[in-house]
Amino acid sequence: RSTLVLGEKEQEEKKQAKETAGDGNNDEEKRIVSYWGVEAPKVTKEDGTEWRWSCFRPWETYRADLSIDLKKHHAPATFLDKMAFWTVKSLRWPTDLFFQRRYGCRAMMLETVAAVPGMVGGLLLHCKSLRKFEHSGGWIKALLEEAENERMHLMTFMEVAKPRWYERALVFTVQGVFFNAYFLGYLISPKFAHRMVGYLEEEAIHSYTEFLKELDKGNIENVPAPAIAIDYWRLPQNSTLRDVVMVVRADEAHHRDVNHFASDIHYQGRELRESPAPIGYH
Amino acid sequence: RSTLVLGEKEQEEKKQAKETAGDGNNDEEKRIVSYWGVEAPKVTKEDGTEWRWSCFRPWETYRADLSIDLKKHHAPATFLDKMAFWTVKSLRWPTDLFFQRRYGCRAMMLETVAAVPGMVGGLLLHCKSLRKFEHSGGWIKALLEEAENERMHLMTFMEVAKPRWYERALVFTVQGVFFNAYFLGYLISPKFAHRMVGYLEEEAIHSYTEFLKELDKGNIENVPAPAIAIDYWRLPQNSTLRDVVMVVRADEAHHRDVNHFASDIHYQGRELRESPAPIGYH
Ligand SMILES: [Fe+2]
Ligand SMILES: [Fe+2]
Ligand SMILES: [Fe+2]
Ligand SMILES: [Fe+2]
Repeated sequence: RSTLVLGEKEQEEKKQAKETAGDGNNDEEKRIVSYWGVEAPKVTKEDGTEWRWSCFRPWETYRADLSIDLKKHHAPATFLDKMAFWTVKSLRWPTDLFFQRRYGCRAMMLETVAAVPGMVGGLLLHCKSLRKFEHSGGWIKALLEEAENERMHLMTFMEVAKPRWYERALVFTVQGVFFNAYFLGYLISPKFAHRMVGYLEEEAIHSYTEFLKELDKGNIENVPAPAIAIDYWRLPQNSTLRDVVMVVRADEAHHRDVNHFASDIHYQGRELRESPAPIGYH
Repeated sequence: RSTLVLGEKEQEEKKQAKETAGDGNNDEEKRIVSYWGVEAPKVTKEDGTEWRWSCFRPWETYRADLSIDLKKHHAPATFLDKMAFWTVKSLRWPTDLFFQRRYGCRAMMLETVAAVPGMVGGLLLHCKSLRKFEHSGGWIKALLEEAENERMHLMTFMEVAKPRWYERALVFTVQGVFFNAYFLGYLISPKFAHRMVGYLEEEAIHSYTEFLKELDKGNIENVPAPAIAIDYWRLPQNSTLRDVVMVVRADEAHHRDVNHFASDIHYQGRELRESPAPIGYH
């Protein structure tokens, strides 16, 4: 109760501040910001110019490791592996049919799905860590980083292909189904869930490779890279869509490795937290 | 399909690696790590010694801002505010009854709950950002950072008060109820959800202030600070439990501000992403 009494004076000041703030929405916002004192700090780029993005910060940017092996594959061995493999393969058929060779659109749509597993996995490991009074081994962060990276893929492809209304409706439905299915799947068998994501990422690599082929053939125009991509992957100013697809594909290869690795840990009958997580693995 | 064929050679290598790996679990792990190449990088402290923690990294540590105003309060004005306020107040009565003056235990138990809202809010904003093809304004990260900070509070108090079996059972139940309730609440009204967390944090400040009083009276022993707390808040080596409670309380005051601020933004009929989020606000 004491907080209430002690707080009354400040609350009065806040009210007065509001009353004298005039009509502007902007003024009002400044008052609230200055009352709670939570203004986002000014961020500058390395060259001193102002940072344009609020959805990511300079310290989250990186140079993609293009040397990663794109052909690694986990040959399904157990029944669970095979189930994960064929689940992904069977999802590919309607996807190919729907998008045909529109790879820009395909990339944009699939990234809305790709960003779900990392977030769900991170959430569930977080709740488990709290419930069991256990350290996470860094896996919560590693999975959340993956989700964020996928969201940045989406923010990038959004600039190249604008979603139409029926595509938005489709994303809405697919997210509703996939979120719940993956949530349940991860609760029942994280071993299966990570393996499936591993295979999804293998398919993603394949589909970005096709994207590159279409770009090289000239079937898709190699437009300049969006500004957000240049800042996120620290690309040269004159980069093109092709360069962006290259770094995104490298990201997917990293996700593939992390998820197959996570599944392998579970296959050994151990928990993720027992192996330190690959944080900042891009 | 090409990924499968191309991957077979590597898969063979992996199998052979497994076969020659011997029986040791450790060897096996090393093989898998080296196949997927996702070994967590060696991290060192500023003084060059090895970093001991895998659940957090040196770049996430900070010095708490103890100068923050502990008495700020949002006087409930609307019906929704009052509902949030009295929801929290009514939760306090059974809590006080259950824990009495066992503040160490209370802190540990409540942190398992406190880490839920940030994660749920972050998840829902993430899904919304994907669904609507919208930038987040940094709020996903800001809320996830809050969740992580609360989890670090738990990891700290765990070292001071060990949970007993019936406390573990209680946490399990409370998380099940609170997670679902908050998830639904945030879906229906983020305005209400953030306001409620703001009030929860006001109560947390109050309860840590009582904790400090008990420490000063000598009713609770002022033991040395756990090593994890010294590293996370960059405290001096000879810090005590009292110092830890001080920095944790300052964290709660920051959470209070962020959540009341978020609710205020919604009260203006705007969305969080329209105001850049306070990332790294400790
Ligand atoms: Fe992606
Ligand atoms: Fe991916
Ligand atoms: Fe806390
Ligand atoms: Fe808090």
